[in-house]
Amino acid sequence: MAHDRVSPSSFSDRLITRVRDLGHPLCVGLDPHLAPIPPLFQQGTMATDDERTAVAVESFLTAVLDRLAGRVAVIKPQIAFFEQLGWRGLRVLDGLCRRATEAEILVLLDAKRGDIGSTAEGYAAAYLASEAAMPVDAITLNPYLGFDTIEPFARVASEAGRGLFVLVRTSNPGSGDLQDRDVNGDPLFGVVADGLSRFETQLAGEATGWSSLGAVVGATWPDQARRVREALPKSLFLVPGYGAQGGSAAAAVQGFVPGPKGLEGGVVNSSRGILFPGDATGTADATTWERALDAALDQAIDELGNAVQR
Amino acid sequence: MAHDRVSPSSFSDRLITRVRDLGHPLCVGLDPHLAPIPPLFQQGTMATDDERTAVAVESFLTAVLDRLAGRVAVIKPQIAFFEQLGWRGLRVLDGLCRRATEAEILVLLDAKRGDIGSTAEGYAAAYLASEAAMPVDAITLNPYLGFDTIEPFARVASEAGRGLFVLVRTSNPGSGDLQDRDVNGDPLFGVVADGLSRFETQLAGEATGWSSLGAVVGATWPDQARRVREALPKSLFLVPGYGAQGGSAAAAVQGFVPGPKGLEGGVVNSSRGILFPGDATGTADATTWERALDAALDQAIDELGNAVQR
Repeated sequence: MAHDRVSPSSFSDRLITRVRDLGHPLCVGLDPHLAPIPPLFQQGTMATDDERTAVAVESFLTAVLDRLAGRVAVIKPQIAFFEQLGWRGLRVLDGLCRRATEAEILVLLDAKRGDIGSTAEGYAAAYLASEAAMPVDAITLNPYLGFDTIEPFARVASEAGRGLFVLVRTSNPGSGDLQDRDVNGDPLFGVVADGLSRFETQLAGEATGWSSLGAVVGATWPDQARRVREALPKSLFLVPGYGAQGGSAAAAVQGFVPGPKGLEGGVVNSSRGILFPGDATGTADATTWERALDAALDQAIDELGNAVQR
Repeated sequence: MAHDRVSPSSFSDRLITRVRDLGHPLCVGLDPHLAPIPPLFQQGTMATDDERTAVAVESFLTAVLDRLAGRVAVIKPQIAFFEQLGWRGLRVLDGLCRRATEAEILVLLDAKRGDIGSTAEGYAAAYLASEAAMPVDAITLNPYLGFDTIEPFARVASEAGRGLFVLVRTSNPGSGDLQDRDVNGDPLFGVVADGLSRFETQLAGEATGWSSLGAVVGATWPDQARRVREALPKSLFLVPGYGAQGGSAAAAVQGFVPGPKGLEGGVVNSSRGILFPGDATGTADATTWERALDAALDQAIDELGNAVQR
């Protein structure tokens, strides 16, 4: 009878437990830009053949996943780079997500979706439901359409033990165009954070105290991270902008709080800095590529591991 | 030499020319909810077999497209309902878009995408570029990340003769949560409209005077439509919310202005009201289904044709 009330282990509990075990909050972004994929993974000219390009991306990211297994808690595939390859790209993404799950790596799909009622249900059915066509552990959402458009995602996430990361304060140069606009003395992103608090409650976890509602808060804006943390004390942060985008490890964990194994409360994403390390550029040698990727991964893990121990 | 400066015929010119010829601004939304697809297009139980479900959606929408050919200027597939079927759904969408193009129906993909720099370029390469993996004529975008995130789309749209429809004021119940927030006396959606004006200029058309920059402005908010029209006098409006969502034909064209063949300046979308007319519910008979769809289509065309002639 107790089972009736126990939902599938919540996303937040699964994520934070794993982050504590590993000792760092690194999330590796899978942004398969085509140009920098090393020749090692290419067969002939990629751009002229859709099918062959998809195979190259699959081969490259499969090899990346194998390096990440056992070392990171979560990956963040950016779906735009798979959509760029059409339906073949989505088929590759589907396979990679399943492979990551088998390797016990959580999948946070960066899709920034958002739409009204029945359409939001369509997206939730696509990615979050127990019987999803392409199941992932969490997804990023855009709040511009209003909080009612988050509800269908929250309902399905709650049922299926999935997570949501809603854009609050992003890390791009123009992020302030709307997000920092003054609304009665508060920036708009504060209004967004306040409006999300009901979903923080709805998606409350059990074992770790963290909610499966998350917020995207750029590493380049530590002051904003503190404002969002006040509004959403139990929400996980997805922090982009670390590494290639210029944010330091210390700035990236500004919204984190003390936990049993150091600062915690989110994940910090690095994409290009790990996927395309300078030493691997243009290589056709597997050992050279593996060493370069491992070194980039070690460095990010060390930096972030140290930052949460401060 | 003149050819150096002439981009491919702009989206706005192609759309408005066709709307003038047909005498109405109806856009038919392709939102393939699974439950109401008539048995006519189903073979066995759909939900238990991904491949079979995709085939049913393809069969249904192919039949719909055949009814629309020669009668509407543009369709608006909602990509969420294809993503719901995983990569197989995207393959179906790809085929439908190509079929629509052959039938001289423009394709406005409702994807509400939005992301930073290189990721926005990925989406643009997916849908808008001349060599796009899944080419469409226009796409909907979400502005929350800032105006710099519209730039990559505008650049590609300008080069390839495509259109952009940016969410300004949507038609859902919670649309005011952020869009109506007061920013120094102006609602946030007004700030968005003002910020988009540079893209209106960048995407200016030639033959018709209309820009290939568009704005999504719900039919249930005619006052807001006038505010957006002031900021964006040459932008096409995509008006959702007509029909099933409760907006009247007269309200839907509030943001339109007098043109050579009546009011013009955008398209008015109807999805469920045409795709799933009551008389076609549960039918397994092709003639019954065709008559019901044609009648729903005739009614919307008449209503909107009359509204633009007032």
